[in-house]
Amino acid sequence: MKKFFSVEDVDSLEEVVQEALQLKANPNANELLGKYKTLGLVFLNPSLRTRLSTQKAAMNLGMNVMVMNMDKDGWALETQDGVVMNGTTVEHIREAAAVMGEYCDILGLRSFPSLKDKEADYNEDLFNKFIKFCGVPVVSLESATRHPLQSLTDLITITEHKQVDKPKVVLAWAPHVKALPQAVPNSFAEWMSKAQEQGLVEFTVAHPAGYELSEDFTKGATITNNLNEALSGAEFVYVKNWSSYKEYGEVYPVSEDWMMNNQKLSLTNDAKVMHCLPVRRDLELSSEILDGPNSLVIKEASNRVWAAQVVLKRMLESLEK
Amino acid sequence: MKKFFSVEDVDSLEEVVQEALQLKANPNANELLGKYKTLGLVFLNPSLRTRLSTQKAAMNLGMNVMVMNMDKDGWALETQDGVVMNGTTVEHIREAAAVMGEYCDILGLRSFPSLKDKEADYNEDLFNKFIKFCGVPVVSLESATRHPLQSLTDLITITEHKQVDKPKVVLAWAPHVKALPQAVPNSFAEWMSKAQEQGLVEFTVAHPAGYELSEDFTKGATITNNLNEALSGAEFVYVKNWSSYKEYGEVYPVSEDWMMNNQKLSLTNDAKVMHCLPVRRDLELSSEILDGPNSLVIKEASNRVWAAQVVLKRMLESLEK
Amino acid sequence: MKKFFSVEDVDSLEEVVQEALQLKANPNANELLGKYKTLGLVFLNPSLRTRLSTQKAAMNLGMNVMVMNMDKDGWALETQDGVVMNGTTVEHIREAAAVMGEYCDILGLRSFPSLKDKEADYNEDLFNKFIKFCGVPVVSLESATRHPLQSLTDLITITEHKQVDKPKVVLAWAPHVKALPQAVPNSFAEWMSKAQEQGLVEFTVAHPAGYELSEDFTKGATITNNLNEALSGAEFVYVKNWSSYKEYGEVYPVSEDWMMNNQKLSLTNDAKVMHCLPVRRDLELSSEILDGPNSLVIKEASNRVWAAQVVLKRMLESLEK
Repeated sequence: MKKFFSVEDVDSLEEVVQEALQLKANPNANELLGKYKTLGLVFLNPSLRTRLSTQKAAMNLGMNVMVMNMDKDGWALETQDGVVMNGTTVEHIREAAAVMGEYCDILGLRSFPSLKDKEADYNEDLFNKFIKFCGVPVVSLESATRHPLQSLTDLITITEHKQVDKPKVVLAWAPHVKALPQAVPNSFAEWMSKAQEQGLVEFTVAHPAGYELSEDFTKGATITNNLNEALSGAEFVYVKNWSSYKEYGEVYPVSEDWMMNNQKLSLTNDAKVMHCLPVRRDLELSSEILDGPNSLVIKEASNRVWAAQVVLKRMLESLEK
Repeated sequence: MKKFFSVEDVDSLEEVVQEALQLKANPNANELLGKYKTLGLVFLNPSLRTRLSTQKAAMNLGMNVMVMNMDKDGWALETQDGVVMNGTTVEHIREAAAVMGEYCDILGLRSFPSLKDKEADYNEDLFNKFIKFCGVPVVSLESATRHPLQSLTDLITITEHKQVDKPKVVLAWAPHVKALPQAVPNSFAEWMSKAQEQGLVEFTVAHPAGYELSEDFTKGATITNNLNEALSGAEFVYVKNWSSYKEYGEVYPVSEDWMMNNQKLSLTNDAKVMHCLPVRRDLELSSEILDGPNSLVIKEASNRVWAAQVVLKRMLESLEK
Repeated sequence: MKKFFSVEDVDSLEEVVQEALQLKANPNANELLGKYKTLGLVFLNPSLRTRLSTQKAAMNLGMNVMVMNMDKDGWALETQDGVVMNGTTVEHIREAAAVMGEYCDILGLRSFPSLKDKEADYNEDLFNKFIKFCGVPVVSLESATRHPLQSLTDLITITEHKQVDKPKVVLAWAPHVKALPQAVPNSFAEWMSKAQEQGLVEFTVAHPAGYELSEDFTKGATITNNLNEALSGAEFVYVKNWSSYKEYGEVYPVSEDWMMNNQKLSLTNDAKVMHCLPVRRDLELSSEILDGPNSLVIKEASNRVWAAQVVLKRMLESLEK
């Protein structure tokens, strides 16, 4: 594996999930694989779960880890070619990426969208240039449009907890106070659509009108504005807020109640409830659910380690060739 | 040991000190104990000595260490239950603590007091909830009311340098430019009171009127407003500023001279002088003392490693059961 | 080696370069040398290349690494003796350095100049006191007046790429938007002057009038204000901006074109072009050069690891005695 940026970087979803579960059963079995190898984690935006779980995964594989919080260091990167750099950007991504690639065997990068310029965000210009210029395998720690380590984690968690062969999985929009990126829902939709294609789940997306995701991510999904209808018979409900893709980054007033709570849960098939965290309690998701038996959110966060570890393991194996 | 928050978490002070001194004599003897184990250090406030010494102690035990500076990441935690999280807090401590407990085998937490709301600070609400929700052993890296790694260090240092069986130890208030927490003096008083109870020291607290510590921490101590009287016959003088407990967080003008200097030192039994650092030179404590033969401040800071290491060692041993 | 602050801390340049190249050929050959040893990296200013390359070098030697970003923690250090510390400095360097020396076997320090007080900057007061009070070997991660790890890297890179026995090396001033320190050019000049003395290179410095470096660093160098003349026959061109030493920290308008580009490169003997990075594209150095076959900037940055590793190796060896 030379990059991990979207679901396209994995062939068989079932195989990658099974490999992750083997790592979970035996975390240190591959501790020699990463000996003398260095993972560099570059954060242009803050991170808690992603940094800790990826660092832990790398240590399980025997790797050294170096973390760079470039948001705090005010290290503004230039991404455009042909500009005279007499402004506020202090280094071009051509040099910055290449240099980090010299010090690290694998790199991770986090970079959030602007939520202002749709085309620039959805072009993934920064990410693509980073991959191109650094010269080593790159794992996405969340980009403008996707959060694949989260989505792989989610698939692992669904696989562990499913009661039927092909569970109904619902991605349900929820309220928030801020305009959030589409990266997590895009990515979840992309992975679940492929999982549906591979016969692993049935996938439905529910959101208020105006919150349609880009069709590139929801191929084959059932899409509805009727939350109650979506929840009917659901085995898993994935709760998440996002801002508008169409009117890019906008937040519309929503008059109906979209917060997930026990009343809505009663419409499901005793569904397990998921969220990528951090979650706004009693705004996105009720405390009664989060503190009750149907919540998977902590187990899901815990599984982040195994998603990262299977990706790093595959990248380390590809280095050896 | 499942938590290290106050002197109550240790039975025999003599035993824990002797175990720490054995670690000091042979730092890497237990390097296999922490293999595959991860220590997470969570700082809601800045740290120099505590972070470095605890990290060093963990590495001596063969542990991996992950540091989270949550003060800088603007990751404001919600601690109250039942509130709709539509404000500035981005994550509830129920989720944040539980998730960190999933990635780490032992957690350390630093959280300073507000110095505004006495009840909230002395309730140690944040700390107690963190311990409750994270599900793994927790070592205090300084809380609102206590700094137990510092106090254990101080007892180790007194044990190493005492010339008599039961030395007279004086906690002496000193001036400062800022309103400081009571955590270090509370904790030192708590540990010395117990040490006095166990026959190891004689303990006196000296401070100007208005700077009384909470009586919960000074049981059995001799308390006086007369510094000269307190210093008479002292073998150890522990210099420290703190703000008022009674008029919570207030700083009163003090007309007498409470800075420790050679003239005052001459009243003691050639006392060794201690301070937790950082120290304001020639305000709290004179340069002549700090640069002279009676100062223990550097040796004391150095001993922070062994205090942390004995605590982590006991926690690792308790994990195995 | 007890300190690495200037070229004076190395005897034979050829020997240190050859030792670095042996480490490059076999990075992990000395992985037991640093076992149980801790490197502390103290940054009073931001760092990317220096932190990553030094951390990597230390890990190659089997050391533990602890990083302290004291710029962000607002941990203002007092350096003057005899002042009452009732202001904004929270700790004296006497204590801060001594304590860090207790936790670490080797320390690295980065501290930029003020560019306001020439005497204070060129006295290197902070650095000298840090070395004096910490009690362990200290490696400069860039000080007010020098960046010796960069200069050693540059000499390694020149040695690897030279086509003739004694290449002509030109340090060429270039434009910038900010007033930059003289540390990198001072240091490069100091190392190249010594390399010239030891028969390894011929050294020329070219800059506009008013940008003279301190003569302490340029002994034996050919110095000129005529860039074209300097470039004639050059095998290596080291491009770098710096502010005025004479009118300390000032930036003069320069009417001629000092940006390095292909037209100027055509005056050289097909010179290799170097820069310490970060570089302002098309302001200091043209994109055509940076993206072309004559640029060494990435290989140079990569060599930072081996410069750091040879210095740390020598320091570790001196600890054993």
